[in-house]
Amino acid sequence: MLTSINFGSRSLSDYNSIVSPGLLEELHDLAAPLNGLRVNHINATAFGGGVAEILYALAPLMEDIGLDVDWNVLFGRDEYFNVTKAIHNGLQGDERSLNDDEKKIYERYSALNAGGLKGEYDVMVIHDAQPAGIREYAADIADHWVLRIHIDLSAPNTDYLNYLLPMTTDYDAAIFHMQEYVPDDPRLPKPVIMPPAIDALAPKNIAFTPDEARRIVGLFGPDPDRPLMLQVSRFDPWKDPLGVIDAWRLVREQIPGVQLAMVGSMATDDPEGMEFYRRTVAHANGDPDIFIMSNLDNVGAIEVNAFQTHADVVLQKSIREGFGLTVSEALWKGRPIVAGDVGGIPLQVIDGETGYLVDSVEQAAERCVTIITDPVEASQMALRGKEHIRQNFLMPRLLRDYLKLFSDIGAG
Amino acid sequence: MLTSINFGSRSLSDYNSIVSPGLLEELHDLAAPLNGLRVNHINATAFGGGVAEILYALAPLMEDIGLDVDWNVLFGRDEYFNVTKAIHNGLQGDERSLNDDEKKIYERYSALNAGGLKGEYDVMVIHDAQPAGIREYAADIADHWVLRIHIDLSAPNTDYLNYLLPMTTDYDAAIFHMQEYVPDDPRLPKPVIMPPAIDALAPKNIAFTPDEARRIVGLFGPDPDRPLMLQVSRFDPWKDPLGVIDAWRLVREQIPGVQLAMVGSMATDDPEGMEFYRRTVAHANGDPDIFIMSNLDNVGAIEVNAFQTHADVVLQKSIREGFGLTVSEALWKGRPIVAGDVGGIPLQVIDGETGYLVDSVEQAAERCVTIITDPVEASQMALRGKEHIRQNFLMPRLLRDYLKLFSDIGAG
Repeated sequence: MLTSINFGSRSLSDYNSIVSPGLLEELHDLAAPLNGLRVNHINATAFGGGVAEILYALAPLMEDIGLDVDWNVLFGRDEYFNVTKAIHNGLQGDERSLNDDEKKIYERYSALNAGGLKGEYDVMVIHDAQPAGIREYAADIADHWVLRIHIDLSAPNTDYLNYLLPMTTDYDAAIFHMQEYVPDDPRLPKPVIMPPAIDALAPKNIAFTPDEARRIVGLFGPDPDRPLMLQVSRFDPWKDPLGVIDAWRLVREQIPGVQLAMVGSMATDDPEGMEFYRRTVAHANGDPDIFIMSNLDNVGAIEVNAFQTHADVVLQKSIREGFGLTVSEALWKGRPIVAGDVGGIPLQVIDGETGYLVDSVEQAAERCVTIITDPVEASQMALRGKEHIRQNFLMPRLLRDYLKLFSDIGAG
Repeated sequence: MLTSINFGSRSLSDYNSIVSPGLLEELHDLAAPLNGLRVNHINATAFGGGVAEILYALAPLMEDIGLDVDWNVLFGRDEYFNVTKAIHNGLQGDERSLNDDEKKIYERYSALNAGGLKGEYDVMVIHDAQPAGIREYAADIADHWVLRIHIDLSAPNTDYLNYLLPMTTDYDAAIFHMQEYVPDDPRLPKPVIMPPAIDALAPKNIAFTPDEARRIVGLFGPDPDRPLMLQVSRFDPWKDPLGVIDAWRLVREQIPGVQLAMVGSMATDDPEGMEFYRRTVAHANGDPDIFIMSNLDNVGAIEVNAFQTHADVVLQKSIREGFGLTVSEALWKGRPIVAGDVGGIPLQVIDGETGYLVDSVEQAAERCVTIITDPVEASQMALRGKEHIRQNFLMPRLLRDYLKLFSDIGAG
């Protein structure tokens, strides 16, 4: 019933020329005693969102370094996914709690999915709360269970912790992106911090030449010879697309030719997202120098990559943020960045050093003007940013953190 | 309430080196007496699907040649779009008819959208049935109304014709892709045939070099040095993705290294599409030489273009088809094609001359083997196909057909 994901193969040696020789050596040292370790990742979806994206990159690297890796996606019908969506929202503070019927549905599908698990494993890596309940029904199939939490649990509706934490008592560890995401609750398994990472080899991050990038950007409307500001993110109030437009209008007072591109992904089954997209379009008010695009306009990974590679300045003007890996993606392309001082962004952007942190529309505009009018200085800052990402936010570093954890919990 | 779409600008002269000088001359001759003609296109959606795609290409070309063009998208809430979806399905034969409440909803939103129309026009171009009812409430704002039908009306649930045709009595014309799509009903406005067309200047069709294409294809998994079969289409029984996989298996018996890529777009609010996608993945059975991708994997227009440019053979193994413009897209890239003998495909593929028409899995496999084992002959066929598309299925030809129609109905 669970879906086994064919994640293809990937060679860690493709990272040879990208990350430091020291890290690669460390990886091989850590992996040697873990050779053949049977690992199964379980999550809720094969598409969309950061979890699947990370697993498509991480799982084949784990396998390439000698582990025996599976990835299974939960089976469920709408009744179940409605409940897991409520759990997802509640863990991030939504006030509505689960009723008894909903808890029964969660438990029924946890048992069903547990029953569908085949094989024996050394470590189960359970991604987020959706699959957390299956351990109760399948404890025997693995010696070690770790919970990888991809969301911010620092301000949850505690009803959800009260419901879920008793199911996780026997997990070996709970992994969080940042210390700030860890809930203050003694029932939690041992917390471990591992920031997420980007895949430098994926279509969205692979290197394009400036010429390739400018050609693709030009196909989507912007004039590649005039300055371009860019934000890549969902159309969502927390990403402040309206503030991005306001900032661009301020920048234009000083730099008349500047253009703005906003590229986001949207789900047609997300009415709130569609509505906020419409508000963003309305706020742009038909200005021909604003280009608003999404996956629904056939904008895919290569296009996003080209826009990031070509832009004069990349914004991530978030008001609230998960980790904000789009910042790492932009920095990895060596572009100057202006980003909100929230969530995981300050780990990636060291203000004035690897980019600029801002708290307001005016500040964002001012930093954009600085960058566009002094591209040489901006480019030096951006290159420091790229180096910071290379050292801290590429996939081999995340692989190392997992290998260390597997050793630490005695799974080797 | 209606949304006015900013469709940007496009220069017809970009087609100078693509289409024949005779066609460009004809366009300018036809457009001269229509200079300043006020045209408003109305349709149901700004994203996704062929109608919006054509309007993004056609509207700016109409404007560039001297017409004064608007494009408005209907306003509506779910209650309305549920009704228009029923109409869309019913016109293509779905047996469920509208009840009185649903008709009232359709009429209420028709009146509401009519009330939201501003300005005066010479011609309203109404795309498909969703906006067809607004003429009754806004007849005064334009001298001429034409109905552009993008779907096959040859086998409708006649309840829908009985309901809608009285609203279209005073339209000047009803435009269809093909003669075969015209319903046999005397109440229909004067039928006009205009096949659709592709935009050679769009990101999905612009020319890539073989090297660019092979690099992008390689990023998504296939080995660019081994032969590649490709189908680009929705995951839908009528496109026969399971048959494509079966055909590929037969081809592999003779050409062991052959790979298969299937690229489709999916809507997360389309449970049937998602289910059929899953069936397709299950039918592939984890074979590492099958690559199944969609917009949900960040595959956009450039990626599709690259796959079409690189593939050794492009399949469109449809069992039933609207017009099938993906065939024109593949032929425009000079690739050999194997396609089902249905819908608008035989207009594009002249069997043995510009590609191969097939009726079965076995036939499809056989033609693919022929193409892959004799690439020189296949390439000559494909180039004849490209020339056929250049002459018949590029956007300037569709622009000409509209200008002719506007003249014919006396709108000049």
